[in-house]
Amino acid sequence: MTKPSTICVLASASPARATTLRNAGIEPLIRVSAADEAAVLAAFDDRDGLQTQGKVHALARVKAEAVIPTLTVAELEDFAGQHGFDSAKAAIVVACDSMLEVNGELVGKPHSPARARERIRALSGQTVTLHTGHAVSLVRVKGETVSVEATRVKAVATDVHFTELTNAEIDAYIDTGEPLEVAGAFTIDGLGGPFIAGVTGDPHSVVGISLPLVRSIATELGVFWPSLWNRL
Amino acid sequence: MTKPSTICVLASASPARATTLRNAGIEPLIRVSAADEAAVLAAFDDRDGLQTQGKVHALARVKAEAVIPTLTVAELEDFAGQHGFDSAKAAIVVACDSMLEVNGELVGKPHSPARARERIRALSGQTVTLHTGHAVSLVRVKGETVSVEATRVKAVATDVHFTELTNAEIDAYIDTGEPLEVAGAFTIDGLGGPFIAGVTGDPHSVVGISLPLVRSIATELGVFWPSLWNRL
Repeated sequence: MTKPSTICVLASASPARATTLRNAGIEPLIRVSAADEAAVLAAFDDRDGLQTQGKVHALARVKAEAVIPTLTVAELEDFAGQHGFDSAKAAIVVACDSMLEVNGELVGKPHSPARARERIRALSGQTVTLHTGHAVSLVRVKGETVSVEATRVKAVATDVHFTELTNAEIDAYIDTGEPLEVAGAFTIDGLGGPFIAGVTGDPHSVVGISLPLVRSIATELGVFWPSLWNRL
Repeated sequence: MTKPSTICVLASASPARATTLRNAGIEPLIRVSAADEAAVLAAFDDRDGLQTQGKVHALARVKAEAVIPTLTVAELEDFAGQHGFDSAKAAIVVACDSMLEVNGELVGKPHSPARARERIRALSGQTVTLHTGHAVSLVRVKGETVSVEATRVKAVATDVHFTELTNAEIDAYIDTGEPLEVAGAFTIDGLGGPFIAGVTGDPHSVVGISLPLVRSIATELGVFWPSLWNRL
């Protein structure tokens, strides 16, 4: 078995994204940094349409850019030592942003049961599109500095087909609290799974991180995907 | 929050199926019983074509039928007591069988690295179809007996689109051992996830159990889906 040699830094607080990486053999170094998302979105003029792909692109990029300057050689070396690496010479920084498009509107977290009910009723029996932007940067440790070698930003759109939910099912789902704090008021990897008839596209992107897209960008940046496996 | 009132019995030893149910809020009572799968398959004449749907149907049914007579009132009551139920009056028994069709051939577990390599090379860049049969029975506890009220059997076909893998990635993947003992020599919920560009259909069925199909059958049998939630 080859030893891991590339650290994966996940620039996201989402437990679902971290779990998705872990299930794929990658324990990430999680680093969340405050990006000014409002400022990024203010640069878009909604009279030009939703521009969803542009928004998730820009937000993913700003999240990666906020995290990279905070990385230190010492913590990368610590992480490498704890997770079976021989050294900490290279890392990828992965940032994501997801937005759900429902009937030509962008939909975020519902926060309240009333809004969640309204949202889920609108999803029932429909096909909606989840857009997820990904920024992947290759960083290298040279001596005492961490420097960025390259960044690629790509977005993916996945259609999600909902079953019809009864009002009693919607009420029971909302009672669990799960839909309140997730974008679009549903999860595919939680209690919401049985309410999704299917997807067209990458199911992991619906959870929040497209594994095949991250692999494809990492490969473009010269990273051998299995060099990220640090939890086999 | 409503209390759970329907037990889910999973007639499968697959850890991936159990995890899929757990993530969807259902801790199953796992009961595996020896069904004579060879005898079931012997009844099919391959000169009539692959008959994949018929085979996964028949295997799912025979697995459910093998498990049901082994269920006792005492164990259902024990399980109900341990998992927050008020009583153990009803249960669904869920059995599944998955088969992968690649270029007009049915493909099982590779067992050896050499066969896994050959299989994964054949998957690289291709779209293949995973068939999963589901048998769902509604059973009721009346006094000292467990009786079957109804059984429905349905199959689902999901297209899985593979990325192209390099030989070095295939070798590294096989070195982990993961593909050797899984049907079709890949997982979507493990290290194989980044090698799958996307699916058309229910991604959970690719893991081995279609949550929306089980919900739909359970509903047909009169079971309110949230009544199965025993691990919120």
